Amino acid sequence: TSALDASEHPHRRYNPLKQEWVLVSPHRAKRPWQGAQEAANAEQLPAHDPSCYLCAGNTRVNGAVNPDYTGTFVFDNDFAALLADTPDTGASPDPLFQRQGVRGVSRVICFSPDHSKTLPELGVDALAGVIDTWCEQAQDLGRTYPWVQVFENKGQAMGCSNPHPHGQVWASSFLPNEAAKEDAALRAYRAEHRSNMLLDYAQREAASGERTVVQTAHWIAVVPYWASWPFETLLLPLFPVQRLEDLTAEQRSDLAHALQALTIRCDNLFETSFPYSMGWHGAPYLTGDTAHWQLHAHFYPPLLRSASVRKFMVGFEMLAESQRDLTPEQAADRLRAQSPKHYKHATP
Amino acid sequence: TSALDASEHPHRRYNPLKQEWVLVSPHRAKRPWQGAQEAANAEQLPAHDPSCYLCAGNTRVNGAVNPDYTGTFVFDNDFAALLADTPDTGASPDPLFQRQGVRGVSRVICFSPDHSKTLPELGVDALAGVIDTWCEQAQDLGRTYPWVQVFENKGQAMGCSNPHPHGQVWASSFLPNEAAKEDAALRAYRAEHRSNMLLDYAQREAASGERTVVQTAHWIAVVPYWASWPFETLLLPLFPVQRLEDLTAEQRSDLAHALQALTIRCDNLFETSFPYSMGWHGAPYLTGDTAHWQLHAHFYPPLLRSASVRKFMVGFEMLAESQRDLTPEQAADRLRAQSPKHYKHATP
Ligand SMILES: O=P(O)(O)O[C@H]1O[C@H](CO)[C@@H](O)[C@H](O)[C@H]1O
Ligand SMILES: O=P(O)(O)O[C@H]1O[C@H](CO)[C@@H](O)[C@H](O)[C@H]1O
Repeated sequence: TSALDASEHPHRRYNPLKQEWVLVSPHRAKRPWQGAQEAANAEQLPAHDPSCYLCAGNTRVNGAVNPDYTGTFVFDNDFAALLADTPDTGASPDPLFQRQGVRGVSRVICFSPDHSKTLPELGVDALAGVIDTWCEQAQDLGRTYPWVQVFENKGQAMGCSNPHPHGQVWASSFLPNEAAKEDAALRAYRAEHRSNMLLDYAQREAASGERTVVQTAHWIAVVPYWASWPFETLLLPLFPVQRLEDLTAEQRSDLAHALQALTIRCDNLFETSFPYSMGWHGAPYLTGDTAHWQLHAHFYPPLLRSASVRKFMVGFEMLAESQRDLTPEQAADRLRAQSPKHYKHATP
Repeated sequence: TSALDASEHPHRRYNPLKQEWVLVSPHRAKRPWQGAQEAANAEQLPAHDPSCYLCAGNTRVNGAVNPDYTGTFVFDNDFAALLADTPDTGASPDPLFQRQGVRGVSRVICFSPDHSKTLPELGVDALAGVIDTWCEQAQDLGRTYPWVQVFENKGQAMGCSNPHPHGQVWASSFLPNEAAKEDAALRAYRAEHRSNMLLDYAQREAASGERTVVQTAHWIAVVPYWASWPFETLLLPLFPVQRLEDLTAEQRSDLAHALQALTIRCDNLFETSFPYSMGWHGAPYLTGDTAHWQLHAHFYPPLLRSASVRKFMVGFEMLAESQRDLTPEQAADRLRAQSPKHYKHATP
């Protein structure tokens, strides 16, 4: 029998961070689509929307009035999933009915007063301000909570209920599932290989270039070898660093350029404001040794073929295993080939 | 400090099948929703649609003509994610770039020639025919493949591209992630407790009734203690059985009633054709001891508050941990309270 051709034949790839597999079915990309279409993006939004509860000077649902902010603006989520003062519960001895009390904080981070500009359109100076805010929030909440999850849901397809550019930060008294999985995987790799998994991986990807979307002086964004979303990317530092707040001024400024270059290419791919959920994973706080950790950001975008056709992670994916229809190398090729100029602002 | 009130205070619950936690934030259920709305269901569909590639007598995209079937109809997926003749690959020695060749089969199962009737409207005789087909497919494919995943994606919200009532079966040469996780968890429970986890669980839920949606002579459907989707249910046998094909005629006929009772209540909850992904998990094939296994079906429905407002499993969920806004007990109360008559056919 012939050899496996990864761009033709179904195969599985292993995600060493989640310690899970993904099914790759490259021959399936040509299947016709007759199902749900995503809503088209709204027309150009105004810079200020009087009915937006995130715009400067407007009143929120709980009566609070937003300040006339000029950079970023952070406030406690009016419908926080985590609260600072939840009562505790004893350990549950019953293996089938286990529960835990939890404490935490949920905040909203407005990226800019401009209602109309998402990260790819903000400009590097404003992006640097967003990065500084992420770093401050991580440092602040890490004093009290072992896990600080900085993230952004972008676009209606990703459950974002307000187009005003914003992200969130949820800090928790517990290590959430995904954090605990990564912690275990990173720790085991370090114990076995005496090196840092994600630093090794970044260096290998930089050397190969096969899955690189963007590379700057200090950062690399790749479609990881084990990507499960069609155009999933992983943003990695090319130097050792455990947490957002440990980044130097130069590394932050270079990150602003990397973020801009990555998100512009994503918007250009389908000439739409590219929906995604993204978030940062850094070393847990208030714990022992974290030398196995390396800061990184995951981008999970749902679109598959166009601005209106997404990948559904449903039946087989929920019950058995994630499945993808094009290879990570094909996805990286397409993203890398995009113009570094945003399609809305490109001059002919 | 006061005690934890699970219907008021944020807490976590443990899913012993996945060995993962879920964050429960019951106080969050009253948050207003300004985001994406799901499309309304189409008007009443015709019993036969000449443009539907699943209706009897119609031609599919690859030129094949469907027979004039009267019960269920099974055929190989025209865009199969798994193929029977993929070349193999050697083991990957590199921990960061591991891959595997895979083999498998993907089939489509039309539930009935009637284009307009999903499971809750099919009637128990036709449901019994669907159950028999599931059992036959499992038995047939289990001769060749270690895992047989029977599932259904229902509704556009769940990536279903054709409203004609149908499910799928994907058989694979490997144990997919979710199967491997359940296998390990069930095995560990049996080793520790000398009993079967899901049989213990079904008996405990039947005794309590707190999370029961439907119970028949041989089956129980509950919103599991650890549900992550708002109205997620778990359908369990009240007797030991490892695989679909091991069900007796009486157990199958009772299952048809349980399935009907469960899916009708789901449709009635928001007076809509309730979208979900569902699927069966039974013991793997071609392997050693499977005494720790117990057949069961998961239903993962996305709706949260109405026919048009769904739960998004996005930022925090993808990067950290699943989060839900009402307790499983509240969800079970609401489902259980629904009429056993389908809202479309209820006479006043
Ligand atoms: O096979 P279908 O119905 O074309 O496709 C649907 O179910 C598959 C299996 O769950 C998913 O991989 C697809 O994303 C979904 O759109
Ligand atoms: O907090 P928001 O924006 O209201 O809500 C959104 O993000 C949350 C965190 O990922 C999710 O739990 C919600 O399902 C989603 O709609």
